[in-house]
Amino acid sequence: MNPEFENFLDLVKKRRSCRDYSEAPVPDELIANCVEAARLAPSACNRQPWRFMIVKNCELRKSLCYEGLLPGLPMPWLKKVPVIAVLCAETDIFTHSIAPLISKVQYHLLDIGIAGEHFVLAAEAQGLGTCWIGWFNGKKVRKILDLPRSLKVLSLISLGYPANPPAPENEIKRMKPEEISKYY
Amino acid sequence: MNPEFENFLDLVKKRRSCRDYSEAPVPDELIANCVEAARLAPSACNRQPWRFMIVKNCELRKSLCYEGLLPGLPMPWLKKVPVIAVLCAETDIFTHSIAPLISKVQYHLLDIGIAGEHFVLAAEAQGLGTCWIGWFNGKKVRKILDLPRSLKVLSLISLGYPANPPAPENEIKRMKPEEISKYY
Repeated sequence: MNPEFENFLDLVKKRRSCRDYSEAPVPDELIANCVEAARLAPSACNRQPWRFMIVKNCELRKSLCYEGLLPGLPMPWLKKVPVIAVLCAETDIFTHSIAPLISKVQYHLLDIGIAGEHFVLAAEAQGLGTCWIGWFNGKKVRKILDLPRSLKVLSLISLGYPANPPAPENEIKRMKPEEISKYY
Repeated sequence: MNPEFENFLDLVKKRRSCRDYSEAPVPDELIANCVEAARLAPSACNRQPWRFMIVKNCELRKSLCYEGLLPGLPMPWLKKVPVIAVLCAETDIFTHSIAPLISKVQYHLLDIGIAGEHFVLAAEAQGLGTCWIGWFNGKKVRKILDLPRSLKVLSLISLGYPANPPAPENEIKRMKPEEISKYY
């Protein structure tokens, strides 16, 4: 196995959804590194639809935790996270795009997945924990951050130093390679 | 800058969309490594909706190139690529999911973006070139590979050894950090 691939696979294996954070602040330089890795992601027609709203402000984070989430799935751990990145798609640049109408794929969602994962892996490489959070109320999040209507909120990503290493029982459970791939 | 992050950023920077391939076959082990990196990706509720159809067969690849693409954007280089990965979402597992109805985000598209980019970065780390291709006819691709209706084709990814290093004028053009991020 070549060392470059080994490094990458190690990073992927090491990265888990972190739901137990220290309150230690994250240096801006490290956040900027995550944004930098995301910035260089590929996207359909190089449109770069991703926008990262980096929320460090305590009051705004509280509002996101108390009003920005959907009910029924409490995430008490989120209140301790020093940074919440709100991942949005700039939809203005799609208005005149006919590609999704023809191919029936909403490329910008794939693009945001790609860039968001660059952000997440860059965080892991710097010793930071992350969690993709989908259980939010997009309208309320937009209101809390006073975002323009052209931005669609697609995910929150928590970012901070892990308080404890993930418990062994939280090992990554995944389908087998033969269940997710087929060779022709 | 810590070395682990530096490694990751180097990988991200090195990776470009490759549209000029050698016809040299790709060893199965290297393909399996790409699938392995994708397999370990995170997904909403750990649903792992990704399915990778790895097309090495020459006739099927020809069919994908001649009938599987949409008209108007010729990709002559694709005919030389030794492997086309057809990236699908298993939609059966979404049938009873109410989450997208509530949060209005199609998580499986984010998930496929994440896993596909793991595949792409794993390829780069092994010296292989890739290109995300969105300009295809999903129905025809499904017919060519005789895929069940529950699989939605979301992208093709070309995979092979680059014939030439990318031209300097193909440098990655991206928006500035301050155009894609905002701090609160």
